[in-house]
Amino acid sequence: MDVSDYMLGLGQQAKQAARILALSTLSQRNFALLCIAKRIDQQRDLIQAANTEDLGAAKAQGLDDAMCDRLALNADRINGMIDNLKQVASLPDPIGATDQIRTMPSGIRVGKMRVPLGVVGIIYESRPNVTVEASSLCIKSGNATILRGGSESIHSNGAIARCIEAGLIDAGMPEAAVQVVSTTDRAAVGALITMDKFVDVIVPRGGKGLIERITAEARIPVIKHLDGVCHVFIDEGADLLMAKAIAINAKTHRYGTCNTMETLLIDQSLAAEALALIGPDLNAKMVEVRGCPETCRMLDWAQAATEDDWYAEYLAPILAVRIVSGVDEAIDHINTYGSHHTDAIVTNNHAHTEQFMREVDSSSVMVNASTRFADGFEYGLGAEIGISTDKIHARGPVGLEGLTSQKYVVFGTGQVRS
Amino acid sequence: MDVSDYMLGLGQQAKQAARILALSTLSQRNFALLCIAKRIDQQRDLIQAANTEDLGAAKAQGLDDAMCDRLALNADRINGMIDNLKQVASLPDPIGATDQIRTMPSGIRVGKMRVPLGVVGIIYESRPNVTVEASSLCIKSGNATILRGGSESIHSNGAIARCIEAGLIDAGMPEAAVQVVSTTDRAAVGALITMDKFVDVIVPRGGKGLIERITAEARIPVIKHLDGVCHVFIDEGADLLMAKAIAINAKTHRYGTCNTMETLLIDQSLAAEALALIGPDLNAKMVEVRGCPETCRMLDWAQAATEDDWYAEYLAPILAVRIVSGVDEAIDHINTYGSHHTDAIVTNNHAHTEQFMREVDSSSVMVNASTRFADGFEYGLGAEIGISTDKIHARGPVGLEGLTSQKYVVFGTGQVRS
Repeated sequence: MDVSDYMLGLGQQAKQAARILALSTLSQRNFALLCIAKRIDQQRDLIQAANTEDLGAAKAQGLDDAMCDRLALNADRINGMIDNLKQVASLPDPIGATDQIRTMPSGIRVGKMRVPLGVVGIIYESRPNVTVEASSLCIKSGNATILRGGSESIHSNGAIARCIEAGLIDAGMPEAAVQVVSTTDRAAVGALITMDKFVDVIVPRGGKGLIERITAEARIPVIKHLDGVCHVFIDEGADLLMAKAIAINAKTHRYGTCNTMETLLIDQSLAAEALALIGPDLNAKMVEVRGCPETCRMLDWAQAATEDDWYAEYLAPILAVRIVSGVDEAIDHINTYGSHHTDAIVTNNHAHTEQFMREVDSSSVMVNASTRFADGFEYGLGAEIGISTDKIHARGPVGLEGLTSQKYVVFGTGQVRS
Repeated sequence: MDVSDYMLGLGQQAKQAARILALSTLSQRNFALLCIAKRIDQQRDLIQAANTEDLGAAKAQGLDDAMCDRLALNADRINGMIDNLKQVASLPDPIGATDQIRTMPSGIRVGKMRVPLGVVGIIYESRPNVTVEASSLCIKSGNATILRGGSESIHSNGAIARCIEAGLIDAGMPEAAVQVVSTTDRAAVGALITMDKFVDVIVPRGGKGLIERITAEARIPVIKHLDGVCHVFIDEGADLLMAKAIAINAKTHRYGTCNTMETLLIDQSLAAEALALIGPDLNAKMVEVRGCPETCRMLDWAQAATEDDWYAEYLAPILAVRIVSGVDEAIDHINTYGSHHTDAIVTNNHAHTEQFMREVDSSSVMVNASTRFADGFEYGLGAEIGISTDKIHARGPVGLEGLTSQKYVVFGTGQVRS
């Protein structure tokens, strides 16, 4: 089988399915989600058997424990997939609304209608539950999808794909609404991200290497999340107990997430006091501190930071700490070294709040809250396709709306242009 | 001079200027626009002298009259540039608004703030007045811009660039807010569309060849307009006088614009009557008709259309005409052969209106109005950067909002994530 022909076939079928999906009613789409949930519930044994096969191959290939854990589908995770489908079915309809209708001087009335994007290509790594998560969001938003999972989860994804297909048929929806790429050939990714005749947007979910490769090679718009070098700045006069709670939460709640704090900035006026308060907690949690010279003087167990540390996304119990002269230097540090993801100020100063909110060029800017809140569910989006570090189309946590666009609708009574 | 180094230098300077622009007030940005207008008014002679030089070179190279006309800057066109700057200065501020603030169950308040994109790269062909139009829109929206005009207008653009630079200095704004590429080396375009560290979005304005080349090679999101194969469908039971007025306006108001009708679809139930009414007007205006077999039977002077005609963007006094069995076939034709730009139905049938508005997958869908209305000014956007035929970020006519994005702002009182 020629991979390029195979992928073009998927693309053509997806495009046809997208036309039907775009016209489906909310209840049809919700019914499809529930039919898929039912099929998954019925096919637990087959899904687990397929997953066991993947896990065996993974262990034989010497994949590490973390990788095997992401790959594993136990009863809880299958329940999670079913719950996810039901939760997405309960969300309001992201498409169909027409608003902003205004009457123009010519007499035409102009508004905007929210519609699906069309065909969404999703590329992800080991976790097979993403197959269900991504499918549910695309079906809900009226988009067809082509899913390309990691080669190590090929059997699990195949078993899940058969449940999705059966559920779509149960609901009278086109089978090609969700297509899971059945080859592990890497050329399939290259084909998917360049067939702009059939695919409207690419959403990669995975490590930085995957995202960079896809961005470099794609001929289709990509909604991507690159990295999260997030900061907390403790301002002059801040409530130190609040600052401590936020800093500890932002760093230690989970080390491996993109909205975890990687650098702590502290105003020089309260640096000694803040470090005396926060330092012991960091030390107790085995967090390694890499500090500027002043930090190292105040915290004798801190190591000296290098220039690279200010750019680092550790995703680990390591924290860079820098003492700054004030809010201006803090903002300058964040805009220079950060990744424009999520940055917070802890402050009691109104003018500094205003300045920080306005000047920090990040997808989420926070005052007196932990960076860990940068999340689609915490923001009330109901679901999350991913977090975008781009400025185009969608920025920050992306909900179902990120899988839609708006078309103009014009209502006239025979107007012509003069 | 190495072109790649030169372009990287422009990029670095633009990025620095963008930071300052993003923090400027509306009155600073408006003042800069008016200072530029004043400089252009003062330097009319220098601009016209530079334009005369370009025109001489163009004629010596044998450029056709249409090209030379686009290139020419007479007193009227210079007045037009000044008026454009004043008009953009009078528009409301597209940035700074914070809205959709909601309180989440965690207690944090989440909203969105509208901010500039950063650095906008604009690539265009012969018309030197685009230098002013594009600059004014970028300054107004708080973006820095790098402009690359056509090589045939290099002297005109240089003279205009000096006015812009002087106006920016008069207003105390960074000179690098607007930078006009001073080399005609084609490698400059290649550098501009791949330096994703410095440029946030590319807006190409020009012919299809230019747009296709840029889209294929860009590593940066592109807001683009590809082609306009627009349709008018005359529905069963439509008011024929209204249908005639709209069809004639959509085809003959201007032949060369992207929102001009290229194919007329007519319901079979009134095809003979409609063609008897509209045919003579088309004939009188020397519009060549390329029809389906039925059309050719009813209109003896029509030529037979080939399959290619249904895909054609003529931009000329040529019209494809097809008789269809009803609204379903009309929608199917439009979604199959059209370019998803602008399509209209002339109808009195409410159910057909609903179906057409929902099912036609185009950036503008109209009922009982001429396709010629698809335009930023007619839609009340105040200004137009271009018309997007993409579905991502901006679709249809793009106003100043297309040069902005929204960042999340989060207000807490010490919340941490549990």
